[in-house]
Amino acid sequence: MEQFDIAIIGAGSGNMIINRKFADKKVAIIEADKFGGTCLNVGCIPTKMFVGSADAAQHVLGAERFNLSAQLNGVDWRGIVSRIFGRIDGNVAAAEQFRRDNDNVTVFKSHAHFVSDHVLELIDAGDEANSPAAVAEQRISADQIVIAAGGHAHIPDHLSQLPAVMDGSVVLHTSDDIMRIEQLPQRMVIIGSGFISAEFAHVFSSLGVEVTVVARADALLRRHDVAVSQQFTQCAVEQWDVRLNTTVIDIVATSDGARVVLSDGSAVECDSILVAAGRNPNTPGLGLHNTSIEIDEGGRVIVDEYQRTSAQGVWALGDISSHWQLKHVANHEARVVQHNLLNPQNLKAARHDAIPSGVFTSPQIATVGLTSAQAQELGLDVVESTVDYKEVAYGWALADPVGFCKVIVERSSGLIVGAHIVGAQATTLLQPIVQAMSFAVPAADLARGQYWIHPALTEVVENALLRVRL
Amino acid sequence: MEQFDIAIIGAGSGNMIINRKFADKKVAIIEADKFGGTCLNVGCIPTKMFVGSADAAQHVLGAERFNLSAQLNGVDWRGIVSRIFGRIDGNVAAAEQFRRDNDNVTVFKSHAHFVSDHVLELIDAGDEANSPAAVAEQRISADQIVIAAGGHAHIPDHLSQLPAVMDGSVVLHTSDDIMRIEQLPQRMVIIGSGFISAEFAHVFSSLGVEVTVVARADALLRRHDVAVSQQFTQCAVEQWDVRLNTTVIDIVATSDGARVVLSDGSAVECDSILVAAGRNPNTPGLGLHNTSIEIDEGGRVIVDEYQRTSAQGVWALGDISSHWQLKHVANHEARVVQHNLLNPQNLKAARHDAIPSGVFTSPQIATVGLTSAQAQELGLDVVESTVDYKEVAYGWALADPVGFCKVIVERSSGLIVGAHIVGAQATTLLQPIVQAMSFAVPAADLARGQYWIHPALTEVVENALLRVRL
Repeated sequence: MEQFDIAIIGAGSGNMIINRKFADKKVAIIEADKFGGTCLNVGCIPTKMFVGSADAAQHVLGAERFNLSAQLNGVDWRGIVSRIFGRIDGNVAAAEQFRRDNDNVTVFKSHAHFVSDHVLELIDAGDEANSPAAVAEQRISADQIVIAAGGHAHIPDHLSQLPAVMDGSVVLHTSDDIMRIEQLPQRMVIIGSGFISAEFAHVFSSLGVEVTVVARADALLRRHDVAVSQQFTQCAVEQWDVRLNTTVIDIVATSDGARVVLSDGSAVECDSILVAAGRNPNTPGLGLHNTSIEIDEGGRVIVDEYQRTSAQGVWALGDISSHWQLKHVANHEARVVQHNLLNPQNLKAARHDAIPSGVFTSPQIATVGLTSAQAQELGLDVVESTVDYKEVAYGWALADPVGFCKVIVERSSGLIVGAHIVGAQATTLLQPIVQAMSFAVPAADLARGQYWIHPALTEVVENALLRVRL
Repeated sequence: MEQFDIAIIGAGSGNMIINRKFADKKVAIIEADKFGGTCLNVGCIPTKMFVGSADAAQHVLGAERFNLSAQLNGVDWRGIVSRIFGRIDGNVAAAEQFRRDNDNVTVFKSHAHFVSDHVLELIDAGDEANSPAAVAEQRISADQIVIAAGGHAHIPDHLSQLPAVMDGSVVLHTSDDIMRIEQLPQRMVIIGSGFISAEFAHVFSSLGVEVTVVARADALLRRHDVAVSQQFTQCAVEQWDVRLNTTVIDIVATSDGARVVLSDGSAVECDSILVAAGRNPNTPGLGLHNTSIEIDEGGRVIVDEYQRTSAQGVWALGDISSHWQLKHVANHEARVVQHNLLNPQNLKAARHDAIPSGVFTSPQIATVGLTSAQAQELGLDVVESTVDYKEVAYGWALADPVGFCKVIVERSSGLIVGAHIVGAQATTLLQPIVQAMSFAVPAADLARGQYWIHPALTEVVENALLRVRL
């Protein structure tokens, strides 16, 4: 049995750990799928590139409010797909080749299955598709193991077990494959109300697909601040066919696609179905029952502030252990694990405060910290302030009727505890607030302690801060 | 002679000073032109709104790189003008009415002419155009006088004294009137190479006008960092007919416009000429020779850090006294004067560090602090770092080939001394750097002391900071 100093399961964020400082370590990197993980292959990066084309289409379609007459004549879907994945696949291949060229690293294109805390059974992934009988197996051991195996798109049982799905007459797409479909559908049903649903509804509708969004809840993006959820739901209703308080009770194959039968008695004909029901950690199949590694009720590997699991010498990071499911959080955790592997006597804790996130839909959304409801649950005494894009000059320039910046400030300290932005550039506009939260700069100092370009869009943030009355 | 506690000359930024805290003061506000000053009427705000339409047109014209086929069918220039000035003129009228409704404020629509340090002759501006002979005059005095009379577009003598200009057969437009022309010209010559030229070249060319830019210098935006100037000049050459190292030696009227004769022997036919040769302070005509108020060689009123002129009880702010000619600087100075008028025993100094500025052209530009050349002149030991938009995921999504973020960091302190961004959202992206400079956060802490959303465009800033090797 081959012995390694470090074994890393998953070549997404996990692949960031190994650098020159590990040159004297014998390292195994085990990846059953593609290098780059969810983010690069089926997540953040390709979706944002599709959003790039969607935003561009929206710019054409929205030209009239700028007193321009424009028309969108065509969408070259195959061109979009090939531009995006041409770039991404090249990066993925380069990342794998880079590792294969490292003298001290062995790359296993395998599934990893724990036999004990420090022994892994590797099940060859490369042969699965063609000759499952030929699956090769081997065991390795490692002093330190990093679990960075990520997550996967979740398809709820009530959908996966429908007869038409079971017999293959209806295909349920997820974010894993929807970006590589051969051609644009005419009509798509998206099941789900979270950020993945919001982003794909924007992408496909902007590119000309009739989109129906089916949401169990009474609003979209319900985990966001209520002001965001309300504004976004309103915008969604104006853009797409949105069915709130509704579930899918059946899907049947039709001659040219499928009929999705809903709990309100209606049905939607479509030729493509996307399930956007969240993502689950990739712990099943890892064999964690053979170890002392503990998981929580959601199936996530439990880690402490140093990213240590309950098994000595086993670490975890990213979507397999994090509630956040955000690449920038996984990257941070990877840096923490990197440091801690190199400095076992001087461990560094991961920092999980002031974590921003974005939803690249239409309109764009960015959020950090607490929602109003969370602040209330925590019993904080807070002051809220909201300024609309249409109240600042650059919002006039953008002719933006819906955008806003909301800040939530703790009265006693004057510190920002949450902020929520809807509208153009939201994910860029949020950064000064993230920075202030991270460096403990009070809202008033943030507003008046620096210049803000007039009349840049940043004035919507400046004015929201100025309007806070403690 | 009517006596006031405070007289404010100019209702641009000067109009911000008076609030409820001045309720017991008798105030005169003297404005010969429109309330709102340069920024609202002929500067930042309308130009950005025109840029809004220009950017929208560029989005249509650039759709192909997103694998979309789109076309721009028409530009409703009158619609643009009327949308923009409909909004602005309403705000201007409301601002004046608000002041007229203040019990303690008298509004004089007049030119102000100093007779002595504290006595002003008011020359009625309202009647000038129609019956100059009927000009009314009166004198007022005030204990405190604030000079906030702004600046005006400069037309160099070698242009204004050309025969065709003198006899009126050729009109030289400036930023004062070019936004209200009746219809879009076919061909426009823009004389100048600074930010006003850059913004209007973008506006008019995007809306379909053939634009020629005539620049005396060997590059556009030469006051910017050399990396910005070079990149922008390259982009300009690809978009417009740019004549560098060239001056206008004559302009002659033609049957359908004008012929602009250049120093290189060539000539450009056009039907509209815009002079964008900078702005000069409005000190001529103020009668400052009758006072102890000093001006510098550029005609600017000289002020100290408290915005005091050399005459006791006379203050100045904004473009009439500032090298910056930026609205956000004028606003800050107005707040300083406001404070100092109310707190004569506890004066506050204006802060003129880390002042950002933007050029809303194509591509957008934002800058703060020192250029490389300035850092070198000061003998600073600095490290520079540049990351291109195309190196980060959101740059891929934007399909942006030219954008970049450059940071200049002092080696000994690790503090950022300058930053320069070219590309989409530049003026928004710059803010975290402005903030770090204002709060003395070193580059390394700025990069790693907070989360940056992946994959938002902010990563271009994050990565530029991370690439700094001190």
